[in-house]
Amino acid sequence: MKTLQVRLPQGAYTIHMGANILDRLLPQVITPVARELVLVVTNDTLDSLYPGRVARALAPTGLRVETCVLPDGERYKTLETLGRIFDRLMALGANRQTVLVAFGGGVVGDMTGFAAASFMRGIPFVQVPTTLLAGVDSSIGGKTGVNHPLGKNAIGAFKQPAAVVLDLELLATLPQRELRAGLFELIKHGLIQDAPLLDFLAANAGKLNSQDWAFWEEALCRSCAVKARVVEQDEKEEHIRAILNFGHSLGHLIETHTHYETYLHGEAVGVGMLFAGYLSTQWGHLPPGEFDRLCDLLLPLLMPMALPPLDEATFSALLLHDKKTAQGGLKYILLEHLGQAFIRPNTTPAEIWPVFQQFLARFPQVCHLS
Amino acid sequence: MKTLQVRLPQGAYTIHMGANILDRLLPQVITPVARELVLVVTNDTLDSLYPGRVARALAPTGLRVETCVLPDGERYKTLETLGRIFDRLMALGANRQTVLVAFGGGVVGDMTGFAAASFMRGIPFVQVPTTLLAGVDSSIGGKTGVNHPLGKNAIGAFKQPAAVVLDLELLATLPQRELRAGLFELIKHGLIQDAPLLDFLAANAGKLNSQDWAFWEEALCRSCAVKARVVEQDEKEEHIRAILNFGHSLGHLIETHTHYETYLHGEAVGVGMLFAGYLSTQWGHLPPGEFDRLCDLLLPLLMPMALPPLDEATFSALLLHDKKTAQGGLKYILLEHLGQAFIRPNTTPAEIWPVFQQFLARFPQVCHLS
Repeated sequence: MKTLQVRLPQGAYTIHMGANILDRLLPQVITPVARELVLVVTNDTLDSLYPGRVARALAPTGLRVETCVLPDGERYKTLETLGRIFDRLMALGANRQTVLVAFGGGVVGDMTGFAAASFMRGIPFVQVPTTLLAGVDSSIGGKTGVNHPLGKNAIGAFKQPAAVVLDLELLATLPQRELRAGLFELIKHGLIQDAPLLDFLAANAGKLNSQDWAFWEEALCRSCAVKARVVEQDEKEEHIRAILNFGHSLGHLIETHTHYETYLHGEAVGVGMLFAGYLSTQWGHLPPGEFDRLCDLLLPLLMPMALPPLDEATFSALLLHDKKTAQGGLKYILLEHLGQAFIRPNTTPAEIWPVFQQFLARFPQVCHLS
Repeated sequence: MKTLQVRLPQGAYTIHMGANILDRLLPQVITPVARELVLVVTNDTLDSLYPGRVARALAPTGLRVETCVLPDGERYKTLETLGRIFDRLMALGANRQTVLVAFGGGVVGDMTGFAAASFMRGIPFVQVPTTLLAGVDSSIGGKTGVNHPLGKNAIGAFKQPAAVVLDLELLATLPQRELRAGLFELIKHGLIQDAPLLDFLAANAGKLNSQDWAFWEEALCRSCAVKARVVEQDEKEEHIRAILNFGHSLGHLIETHTHYETYLHGEAVGVGMLFAGYLSTQWGHLPPGEFDRLCDLLLPLLMPMALPPLDEATFSALLLHDKKTAQGGLKYILLEHLGQAFIRPNTTPAEIWPVFQQFLARFPQVCHLS
């Protein structure tokens, strides 16, 4: 097992990573924060897959454990679904000593975190990620929230968990497609700040489909460490934290343009990362040889993606509607080298559009307009 | 004009108090925080009473000013109404540089503040209170939020405004009943921590119905100062801040039991303060002579209140459902002296119920069961 400390102004918390650690560690992290009632928030898919799993892990604590089952899917990450968590809390007579447990992927984690931030103006919550993406990305950094029909994650709060328990056994049942999608965020952390992590992944490429827990512990811990260090420097995304959005400008555009229905978040970000690398090379930042290495890493993982027709006006509107938009353009995240990202401020859609056209022509097997 | 600084860990802000200051001060406080778009949140009553008032004050800034008009009333302080603010922001293409202005009383202020806390995980907002209650109470301290059908202010955030502009001219159009209701919170601050404020109010009792701005500036500034100092010591209500809930345990019970329909918040708190004073005396804390002075101050302002029938079980359930409830009882706020409150932990409804029965018998003109 590995542990990683995240130290933030409001306090520190620990991420515990390892195979088969839930039963031992969840009681250990919950006991100091819970008084009487624990509400486990999950989705219907996970509830069928692991019925009563969290309650069983918490049985030795003697705490009252209840469950709130949400419908599965990004399209339910709304203010309305959030209201169902509050309804359940109120119906159970929850108070400021109640603790939430997010048992699920990024959607469950984001909604549970926002509910924990807002219920009685703040109660503790513990993350138990069940996807690679949630483990490596959304469970660190405290960004929580829900989508608005006109904007992803438009409504939310910064809220840090009391602890994260990342049990690799839970990831073993992930569908292959979800596992691969999560890998993109893991790789992203290497691309923006940790070149040796990229070497480690390249050297162990064969283990990506395995249940070699020692490999996964190492890969996850190094990847999480990058995100934790960035968030520690800039929790509220006032400067450096923006580099974590590497691949996300185009990624969000793809998700919005396909109504969050066709592709997984990680898949959209994967294409966005390849494009951001391409842009970095075209604009003279990333040496072409390094872009080739980026392709070697990403192309085997990317599946063909078909986007609905997209003209420049739509492209521009979708890019600028992203919430990182300030007047005068986007903060686009580019690479100087593999393992070294930087922020290019005031980037306009008009500059990006022609390069996007070239990108589509060069990588039709990755992304094409239908 | 008077100003009061509120200093909190995340930064300081200023409360500006005076007659006819809106046109001069609002542009001054908005300009440093707004880039392009300002959204004024108000209710339909105020929008009819002061059409375009805030936009006119902001005209010299050249900023784009839009308005979001919510239905008037505590019963609309819900997650659904909050969603209307987000809908408007998204439709206007708002971003992290957008600023909200809360133009209204406590309901508008609480919802606007929570929207500002949550939109894009936090944008600035400025308070322009139009009621005495909002000016003296809800515009200081950063408690924002909405009600749940099963609990008042059950969902919310701590969010401090960028500034508060309290124009006394706006209070001049307040209905007499609202003005009187707001006075209870003003008096509360004297009762819990500032005996000289009580003397000042007693000496100027005749001016409470006047537009003597010099009197009001002084009364408001002293009252706001008490709240500001308490909040500075304990923003998140981990200890001393709870004394601001003086009168609120019974107040919330009255509001919930009458479905927020019959009495104003201040009126319910007024009865709650008289009761908390009575309880303090009955339990041997507040000397009887001081309780008589409390009665002299409060009784002329209290109107007869009729509550629906209430048995001990309902009384107990309503008291314990309040969110300040921890296991083992309530933190009840009592008085040692006028101007000196303290927290009595682990107070049970069973202890309070018999004293409440005596209270009803002693003050039938203030509160009786129908």
